[in-house]
Amino acid sequence: MPDTLVNGIAAGRIAVDDRGLNYGDGLFETVAWLGGRPRLWHLHYRRLEEGCARLGLAIPEEPLLRAEMKIVAGDTTAAVIKIILTRGSGGRGYRPPAGAATTRIVRRLDWPRYPEDNQPRGVTLRYCDTRLGRNPRLAGIKHLNRLEQVLARAEWDDEYDEGLMQDESGNVIEGTMSNLFACIEGAIVTPDLSQCGVAGVMRRWVLDTAPRLEMPLRTEAVSTFALDTAQELFITNSLIGIWPVRRLGTREYSVGTVTRRLQDALQRETD
Amino acid sequence: MPDTLVNGIAAGRIAVDDRGLNYGDGLFETVAWLGGRPRLWHLHYRRLEEGCARLGLAIPEEPLLRAEMKIVAGDTTAAVIKIILTRGSGGRGYRPPAGAATTRIVRRLDWPRYPEDNQPRGVTLRYCDTRLGRNPRLAGIKHLNRLEQVLARAEWDDEYDEGLMQDESGNVIEGTMSNLFACIEGAIVTPDLSQCGVAGVMRRWVLDTAPRLEMPLRTEAVSTFALDTAQELFITNSLIGIWPVRRLGTREYSVGTVTRRLQDALQRETD
Repeated sequence: MPDTLVNGIAAGRIAVDDRGLNYGDGLFETVAWLGGRPRLWHLHYRRLEEGCARLGLAIPEEPLLRAEMKIVAGDTTAAVIKIILTRGSGGRGYRPPAGAATTRIVRRLDWPRYPEDNQPRGVTLRYCDTRLGRNPRLAGIKHLNRLEQVLARAEWDDEYDEGLMQDESGNVIEGTMSNLFACIEGAIVTPDLSQCGVAGVMRRWVLDTAPRLEMPLRTEAVSTFALDTAQELFITNSLIGIWPVRRLGTREYSVGTVTRRLQDALQRETD
Repeated sequence: MPDTLVNGIAAGRIAVDDRGLNYGDGLFETVAWLGGRPRLWHLHYRRLEEGCARLGLAIPEEPLLRAEMKIVAGDTTAAVIKIILTRGSGGRGYRPPAGAATTRIVRRLDWPRYPEDNQPRGVTLRYCDTRLGRNPRLAGIKHLNRLEQVLARAEWDDEYDEGLMQDESGNVIEGTMSNLFACIEGAIVTPDLSQCGVAGVMRRWVLDTAPRLEMPLRTEAVSTFALDTAQELFITNSLIGIWPVRRLGTREYSVGTVTRRLQDALQRETD
């Protein structure tokens, strides 16, 4: 069973002139393959559609990607499927070629071993020094230009589980690999991502689920001061699901009922 | 003669887990190979040093890169040598692996055929709608996160030779593939690149050369209004050298003596 398909063919390499390498001209998804199926796949594919529309990439058909995920997953029960779509080769410099064929990479990766306590007891966070530049044309989608996250993640080793990133004005936007939620005066608040940040599929799931559970939720600018006053914090991504935050810098938080209710709902829905 | 070396070996492909593809975690240089040697090579290598220091990449020795350029260039008299350095494979997600081996790609590309009139008579420019996000940690270096340039260049076909990009505050920063200079009230002015933009080697050459020719030059914020009032405009990059601008939007410019003097100096120095 091949662990990597490039345009449907078992392969571990791509052309050096691929625009994904040369310019980060493409998108990716990191999908949790659990119990023989991709968790929240419809949300991953919806984000790919949005990203392809934004970048002007031709999107592969959904059944094709699903079939290729199944091939690389084989009979593994827990794995990560990474999908990369690039604009392929060609073009004159930055100029995209007309009618480019999208390069499609589907890989199986090992399920990451996170500490078992993260889910029940929570994680520790820090603020990163590296800031996120603002660009509404790139905000929200999961494109391949990720140097800001790489530099931010390089700021610490194992002392923290995650780092929060701010934009240049000091608004808190997200973690390096996760989205952030805060419970403030009875409402769930998550940062506005219209100017920068990645709109994660697990964030999408929370945005869709909270109203169904009659939990008030709003998207807005979030300051470090607001986080200081929050009763609960939690972070999300497609692999970790929902992790409570027990410490941010020197401020300690308890794992609260809002976080627990959402964890339970996710567990029920994706079991 | 191989036209591509990957880590010194003739090859046209790289691993799909290379961080250059996955995150744009690397740098590149586009070198003019003219008359059997790389033009302004010392400036290219100096920028690579700066970029590697900024990203925490191990830099290949200068003689090694020079030798590999010579191998792929062979006996061609005019070619483009593209060098890509990436952080290689590995790491846990965005987190850079400790002691990563830099992936080194050296390619020969055809010399681009630009219209012959561009150099003597000048080019036409437009303003792009796509803006540049600000991030001082990434500003100036030629990293692989180039989606902003790709989106900007996709805004037009062949109606213009180049497009100018602004930051989110409206400061004019650079062209999609070039740097910008304006002659305003007797001085050469070029945009400050401390927050965004790529500091081109030909821009560096102009910054170094103008004082030697006793031409006053300053680096500062440049507005569209300032460009309206300019007597001359020119753009630069490592391949095109110096192109006068004869039109920006609806404003027409004459090719002036400052531009000509610098073109002559470049011709003399690199002949």
